[in-house]
Amino acid sequence: MSPGRRGTGRAMSRPEQRLAELGPALPEAVPPVGTYVPAVRSGDHVHVSGQVPLREGRLIAAGRLGDAVGMELGYACARQCALNALAALKAETGDLAAVARVVKALVFVASTADFTRHPQVADGASDLLRELFGDAGRHARSAVGVSALPLGSPVELELLVELHRPAHG
Amino acid sequence: MSPGRRGTGRAMSRPEQRLAELGPALPEAVPPVGTYVPAVRSGDHVHVSGQVPLREGRLIAAGRLGDAVGMELGYACARQCALNALAALKAETGDLAAVARVVKALVFVASTADFTRHPQVADGASDLLRELFGDAGRHARSAVGVSALPLGSPVELELLVELHRPAHG
Amino acid sequence: MSPGRRGTGRAMSRPEQRLAELGPALPEAVPPVGTYVPAVRSGDHVHVSGQVPLREGRLIAAGRLGDAVGMELGYACARQCALNALAALKAETGDLAAVARVVKALVFVASTADFTRHPQVADGASDLLRELFGDAGRHARSAVGVSALPLGSPVELELLVELHRPAHG
Repeated sequence: MSPGRRGTGRAMSRPEQRLAELGPALPEAVPPVGTYVPAVRSGDHVHVSGQVPLREGRLIAAGRLGDAVGMELGYACARQCALNALAALKAETGDLAAVARVVKALVFVASTADFTRHPQVADGASDLLRELFGDAGRHARSAVGVSALPLGSPVELELLVELHRPAHG
Repeated sequence: MSPGRRGTGRAMSRPEQRLAELGPALPEAVPPVGTYVPAVRSGDHVHVSGQVPLREGRLIAAGRLGDAVGMELGYACARQCALNALAALKAETGDLAAVARVVKALVFVASTADFTRHPQVADGASDLLRELFGDAGRHARSAVGVSALPLGSPVELELLVELHRPAHG
Repeated sequence: MSPGRRGTGRAMSRPEQRLAELGPALPEAVPPVGTYVPAVRSGDHVHVSGQVPLREGRLIAAGRLGDAVGMELGYACARQCALNALAALKAETGDLAAVARVVKALVFVASTADFTRHPQVADGASDLLRELFGDAGRHARSAVGVSALPLGSPVELELLVELHRPAHG
C-alpha cells in the first residue's frame, strides 16, 4: 500500500488528508503528565502512551460513565484520546503515512460497577482509526472499566502501531 | 519443536488434539462487540482482543468477584476466555500449531475493592494454556481488579502470542 | 551505546552500578503467585509480568490510594514494583546491561473513584528506570486506577523492554 500522497502542491499524506476532510485538525502532542514520554519506537512498532481527552490543555469531560458522563460524551472522549494518540504518533514518526497498521488499542473507561457498555465508548477511538486508515486501521482491542483515571478523565487510550519498513538501498 | 501432527488419518495438531482430550471443543470465534477485530497479526506476533466468557452467545456468568461471583466460577470464566482467545487465534492463523509461544496474558477481573485473589481467578486461563501448549504455554501475566467489564462480564483476557516463523526456501 | 563495564575487578554493568550507588540492592526475583512466569523473552523483547511491591516476601503497603495509602507511600510502592521488575529482568537476561531500551510501562494503581493523581504515583517506577538507564530508560506509559490488586497491593507494574541484539559472527 502506497502512502498515497496527492499530486498537488500540498504533500499531505492520505490519513492526514482524511483527517482534514473529517474536520478536526490534528492537535499538538500533549505533554506527558509524568516522567515518561508520549511515544516510543521499538523495531517496527510505536507504543503510544496512555492518552486522556485533553483539548487545548483541558479535559473535554470529567467523571465516570454510568454516573456524570453519558454515552455520547464518553464516545467523544474516546475520539479525542485517539486524536491525541495520533498527534503523539505524528510527533514520533513525522507523518501518519508511516503507519502500516494499527495493531492494538487498550481502552480504559472510568465507570461505575454497574456500567456495561465500555465497547460502545471505546468505538469513539476505533471508529476514527478506521475512518483515517481504512483496512490498516482495523485493530485488536480490549476495553475495560476502571475505578478512576488521571485528572479525573472518563477515558484513557493506549495504542500500538506497526510502521512501514523503510525501503532500503 | 515440531507442531506434532499425528500419523493418523486426522491431521489434528498437538494443541488441538490436547484440547480435544481435555473435553471442551474449540468454540467459534466470538464476533467483536465493537468496531475492532478479534486478532491482528503483526510480524511474528498475534495480538488477540480482550475476550469475555461467552459460550454459545451468552456469558457463563455475570457480576463481580468478591460479590455475586465465587472463586470456582471466576476460574471457569477465565478458562472460557482462554478458549475464546484460542478460537480467535485459530481463526487468524488456521492452526494452533502455528503458536511458538504464548508470550503474555493480561487478565482483568471485575472485583470489589476488598477482593485480593485475582491471580487464582486468572489461573483459569493460564492453566489451560499450559495444558495445551506445555512449556510453550508458559507466559508472562498481569492480573488486576477492575470496576466493571463489557456486558457485565466477571473476567476479560487479552493475549499476545508469538508464531513460528515459516520455513523459507 | 556500550554497556559500560568498569575496568575493575568487579564486572558490574552500568545500570547495576547506578542501582548500587542509589542504595537499594536488587532483590531476588519474586516468585509468581499463579501459574505464569516472571518474564518471557520474545524476539528482541522481554515482557515482565505484573509486579507488586513485595520486599522480602511482604508487601510494603496495602490498600488504596485516596484511602489508606498516601502519595509518598504510593510512590515508594511503584519504585519497589520497578525494583522487582528489574530483578525478574535480570533473572531472565543475566545482566541489566542487556537492556537497550525500556519501551513501555503499564501501571495499575488501586484507587478510590475520586483519586486523580495516578501519574504521580507511577512516577515512582518511571523515575527509577530513568535514573538507572538514562535516555534508554525513557519509556511510554499508561497509568490507571483500578478497584483492587492481588494481595491488596496498592500498585502493580508491567514492563516491556527491548534488548540489545547480540553481535553475530
